[in-house]
Amino acid sequence: MAKIVDIKKKLVPIEKKTSKSSENYDQLIRAGLISLTQKGFSSSGIEEILKNAKVPKGSFYYYFKSKEEFGLALIDSYSNYFARKLDKFFLDETLTPVERLEHFIKAARISMARYDFQRGCLVGNLGQEMTILPGSFRQKLIDVFTDWQHRTELCLVEAQKSGLIHSEIDCKTKAEFFWIGWEGAILRAKLERSAAPLDLFSKDFLMSLK
Amino acid sequence: MAKIVDIKKKLVPIEKKTSKSSENYDQLIRAGLISLTQKGFSSSGIEEILKNAKVPKGSFYYYFKSKEEFGLALIDSYSNYFARKLDKFFLDETLTPVERLEHFIKAARISMARYDFQRGCLVGNLGQEMTILPGSFRQKLIDVFTDWQHRTELCLVEAQKSGLIHSEIDCKTKAEFFWIGWEGAILRAKLERSAAPLDLFSKDFLMSLK
Repeated sequence: MAKIVDIKKKLVPIEKKTSKSSENYDQLIRAGLISLTQKGFSSSGIEEILKNAKVPKGSFYYYFKSKEEFGLALIDSYSNYFARKLDKFFLDETLTPVERLEHFIKAARISMARYDFQRGCLVGNLGQEMTILPGSFRQKLIDVFTDWQHRTELCLVEAQKSGLIHSEIDCKTKAEFFWIGWEGAILRAKLERSAAPLDLFSKDFLMSLK
Repeated sequence: MAKIVDIKKKLVPIEKKTSKSSENYDQLIRAGLISLTQKGFSSSGIEEILKNAKVPKGSFYYYFKSKEEFGLALIDSYSNYFARKLDKFFLDETLTPVERLEHFIKAARISMARYDFQRGCLVGNLGQEMTILPGSFRQKLIDVFTDWQHRTELCLVEAQKSGLIHSEIDCKTKAEFFWIGWEGAILRAKLERSAAPLDLFSKDFLMSLK
C-alpha cells in the first residue's frame, strides 16, 4: 500500500491568485473555459471568446502572446479549479472515503446536467484533440491526469486503511482506471445528453472496490 | 440472461458495397476516415481531404451535397468496417468467447501502435465534438455504440453460457460499461502516445468478468 505522505508529495500545489488576476484576465479565462469545455481548442475562436468575455482585443494580447499561451493558461486554471474541487470532496472528513468518491461523482452528475450535458471535461476534450494541438499541451495534460489520479489514489488508500474497500486492490492502478473510464463516461454523457453513462460507469466502478 | 436470437435481431445489418462505390468515392471515404480519426470533424477541411484523396472537387459534390452528408457517409462506412471487424473476432468459433474479446483488444492495441497512437476512434472523436456537430450526427453515433454493445453483449452471453464469466454479470450492462471505458482508454492512449492505458483498462475489465 502506498504511503499517504509519499503521495501527498507528488500532488501539484494549488496556485494562489496572483496580481495578474485583474477583472479582464478573469473574464478571459472564464469565457475561454466555457468555450473549451464545450467545443475544444481548435474550434474555439479568440474573437468569439473576446465577445463573450466583453473584453477588448488589446487586453488579450496584454496577457497572452498567442492562442497557444492562452490555452496553456486555461489548462492551469482548470487544473487548479478541479484540484480544489477534488480536495473539497476527497478531504472531507465528515464522510467515509468511499462516500467522498460517491459525493464527487454525484456533484459531477449535477454539474453536467446543469449545462444540459453540453460541457464536458476540458482536459478530456483537449486529450481527444491532441493530434492537432501544440506539442506543449501534451505533457501538461498528462500531468493534470496524474495529479487527479494521485488525489483519487489517496482517497482510495484511506478507504483501504479503513477496511471499506478490498485489501488486494492496487489503489494507484484503480485510480488510473477510474480516470480513464470516467473520461469515457463524460464523453458518452455529452453524446447522449444524459446522465445514464455516468451512472452506469460509476455504479460498476464502486462495486469493483468491494 | 438475454437470448442470443433476440440480440442478433437488434444488430445493424452490415451493408454490401453498392454501385456508388467508384474508385473516387472509395478514395474520398478513405481520406475522410484518416482525417476524422486523427482530427475529428470540425478540424478536417474538405480541401485537404480532396488533396489527400487525389480527387477533383467536382467528384466530391457529385457524391455529397455537403460536408454534413460526407460526415454521415463516413460514420456509415466506419460503422460497417468496424462491425465486420467485431464479427471477425466475436464470431470466431476457434476461440473461447473470452479469448475473442482478448484478441479484439490485442488487435486494437496493434492497430493504434501502427499509427503511433495518432488515430483514435472516429465515433469517439465525433462524440467528443458533438456540441458543435450537425444534429443529424447524434442519433447515428448513439446507434453505432448501441450496435457495438449488442455485438459485445452477444459474445459475453456466450462466455456466460460456457461458464467462462460470472453467472451474475448482466451482459448488456457490462458490454455498455466496456464501450464507455474503452473509448476513455483510446482517448488516453492518444494523449500519452502509449498502449499503457489500453492495457490497464482491459486488464481490469477482463478481471471483473470472473
